[in-house]
Amino acid sequence: MKRILLSVEYDGTNYAGWQRQANGLAVQQVLEEALSAATGVPSLTVTGSSRTDAGVHALAQQVHFDTESSIPPEKYPFVLNNMLPPDIRVRTGREVPPAFHARFLSCGKTYTYRILNSRHGTALYRNLCWHVPVPLDTEAMQSALPALKGTHDFAAFQAAGGTAKTTVRVLDRAELVRNGDWLILTVSGNAFLYNMVRIIAGTLAEIGLGRLKTDAFQEALASGNRLSLGMTAPPQGLELTEVRYPAQAFTDPAGLRWHQEEG
Amino acid sequence: MKRILLSVEYDGTNYAGWQRQANGLAVQQVLEEALSAATGVPSLTVTGSSRTDAGVHALAQQVHFDTESSIPPEKYPFVLNNMLPPDIRVRTGREVPPAFHARFLSCGKTYTYRILNSRHGTALYRNLCWHVPVPLDTEAMQSALPALKGTHDFAAFQAAGGTAKTTVRVLDRAELVRNGDWLILTVSGNAFLYNMVRIIAGTLAEIGLGRLKTDAFQEALASGNRLSLGMTAPPQGLELTEVRYPAQAFTDPAGLRWHQEEG
Repeated sequence: MKRILLSVEYDGTNYAGWQRQANGLAVQQVLEEALSAATGVPSLTVTGSSRTDAGVHALAQQVHFDTESSIPPEKYPFVLNNMLPPDIRVRTGREVPPAFHARFLSCGKTYTYRILNSRHGTALYRNLCWHVPVPLDTEAMQSALPALKGTHDFAAFQAAGGTAKTTVRVLDRAELVRNGDWLILTVSGNAFLYNMVRIIAGTLAEIGLGRLKTDAFQEALASGNRLSLGMTAPPQGLELTEVRYPAQAFTDPAGLRWHQEEG
Repeated sequence: MKRILLSVEYDGTNYAGWQRQANGLAVQQVLEEALSAATGVPSLTVTGSSRTDAGVHALAQQVHFDTESSIPPEKYPFVLNNMLPPDIRVRTGREVPPAFHARFLSCGKTYTYRILNSRHGTALYRNLCWHVPVPLDTEAMQSALPALKGTHDFAAFQAAGGTAKTTVRVLDRAELVRNGDWLILTVSGNAFLYNMVRIIAGTLAEIGLGRLKTDAFQEALASGNRLSLGMTAPPQGLELTEVRYPAQAFTDPAGLRWHQEEG
């Protein structure tokens, strides 16, 4: 039995999110069916690093599974991409130790959130951004972000339904760059709560509109109150961009601490 | 009667190109139907600056039409975007003089061609690039490009079916930039022959593969022979990025010379 790790890119537009579920087609299900067909095993489960929501994209979702198949690990992209729909692409495949875990061993993730701040929407990138037609004050938004960096209790930054045991997270990067009409938010941290990045993006937008003050994040961190923050930004602007593991995860993961984070 | 100029962005994936035709749905037709509905005129014709092919995209196709409607010109994006499918967006609207012409007065255009040069394809940008899985020699490709700049007879650079009276064109920019796995070709000139940019992109790729020499463009310019060049690159990598007009076109176009170019 081998454990294989795949890096998977997907356009979440036509899926009910990563996780297999009763209502609607999930990316996980499509990938599992392709893997079943490729390996000749009727039923098979894969484990993803992050449970991205419906409409959310991934540039590099990390996915592991166990198999007896003799397919060389690096051939999985070739084999699977012939069977998968074009909005799901396997970019790399490698063998990892049996104790590797795509989700529980992850020590960091980077998400990108894209806002198109122009009067009229975009045709070409319509599924890859949140279109905000009213001018946003980029400087106000940027000045709000440093408060998020470091170790904080992000209890206010989660949607109902979050099941994390602790809401303390460490963010090492929270950056907003404007390039013409595009606002690109990059957030990186050890782990994220349910809807955390979308709540950060929605709050930022409301700061940019002048509806919320630039100390909204500070206030929410202090109060733990979701109402100190703004709306949850829509899913199509969000992309899971990178998932990180300790180097040891790929050689001798047995001694590593497991995390059980939301995303 | 007013002449209105719209700037239109579209994702060409689901269309049979810009120009209205018997086989398949064209962007022009969808736009004309929305305009008919908006202005209450049963049948109406719009004129685009460029006849982009099936699958080719536009960031800023320029489109003019005449109307008696009292809709303020700058309101057309709001009115039309409510009726158009999300893969077509009107970005701006303005009134232009009755002698303005989106196609015949254009004095310059910029096209962008995107190649993804990675082993495995992309899910997120699958409709916006040409995926070339074999490593391309960027420097060889870049060294071939300067030969295209300036005034040349580009007779070799057109597909069968071109109807241009002259094949002399002036290119002021022909640039290739690599950013990780992405190769972005930008070509700018006074006008382009049918399939000219896709032939340039396809030839460049064959130079990058070592199948054609870096002087292929020079040879083709000298010989006029299409066979000196490479394949026509697929449409989904191509985007009409910018269309230029003399300033006078917007104030007093009557004295300007008309062009009758392919694209």
